[in-house]
Amino acid sequence: MARIAIIIADLFEDSEYLQPAVAFQKAGHEILHVGLQAGATVKGKKKGTSVLIDSSFKEVGIADFDALLIPGGYSPDKLRADERAVAFVKDFMEAKKPVFSICHGPQILITAKVIEGRHITGWKSIVQDIVYAGGIFHDREVVVDGNLVSSRSPADLTAFISAALKKLG
Amino acid sequence: MARIAIIIADLFEDSEYLQPAVAFQKAGHEILHVGLQAGATVKGKKKGTSVLIDSSFKEVGIADFDALLIPGGYSPDKLRADERAVAFVKDFMEAKKPVFSICHGPQILITAKVIEGRHITGWKSIVQDIVYAGGIFHDREVVVDGNLVSSRSPADLTAFISAALKKLG
Repeated sequence: MARIAIIIADLFEDSEYLQPAVAFQKAGHEILHVGLQAGATVKGKKKGTSVLIDSSFKEVGIADFDALLIPGGYSPDKLRADERAVAFVKDFMEAKKPVFSICHGPQILITAKVIEGRHITGWKSIVQDIVYAGGIFHDREVVVDGNLVSSRSPADLTAFISAALKKLG
Repeated sequence: MARIAIIIADLFEDSEYLQPAVAFQKAGHEILHVGLQAGATVKGKKKGTSVLIDSSFKEVGIADFDALLIPGGYSPDKLRADERAVAFVKDFMEAKKPVFSICHGPQILITAKVIEGRHITGWKSIVQDIVYAGGIFHDREVVVDGNLVSSRSPADLTAFISAALKKLG
């Protein structure tokens, strides 16, 4: 069973956190919430879902995890302003461990400079950012490129979760 | 006196709208709020400031205005997902009319593909987006490059407003 880091900050898209988190746990995987401040509670954008941050980026490294989930909303915008969060994501991509990105998730991958030449999708507002960053954008419900699984929005969650679970094996 | 379009959507950074808007009006300029839906009310991110949208992008063109203000927060992310909003911004830049961008404002300039080779600043989370888009990023309170005036955050508002008023003449 895999140990999955979920990186999350305020104004995350509720369903893009909740649905994968529940599905991962049901499948027997373990999840841990990593954020800007351990012990803080962050809130979802639409429904105010509360998430307690288990660890900050200071306390963990990718050796502690098998995979990474990046929910969307405005959470990735907050995380990408933090150097340690960006380094954490970069390490996952360089180690080729599974990375699951949805909606605005690619924003932190862009700051980590890891999407050049990679097939990827994301929310429509960031398409041009993805293209400028050298990503190969696809307007599809889920795109799988090696370790990287990406989707566009909550409407894609079924396909996203299915592809992520398959990648976890 | 100038007629200034303020493009704005939900979750804008309150002060980045309010302070320039008040300063422009005090200086005798006219402001008009352009957004995704005429007659709708949009709300600020931190203080819930209410702004009534005077016109949608369908009803106006750059011929109606002398300058453009793009407040930050998550408003630019919502606007850049709308083709008409992106075209409106692109037209301003191509006509070399004054454009005032602060915080996340460059996001819509990036989608409009108009910052290549331009000196610009913006909020720290979007620095890599600016660089990938060909912008020349400066970590300064205000950057003036021809028609384009940009600042990083609410802390830069005094310098931003002063440079914008100077550009309006």
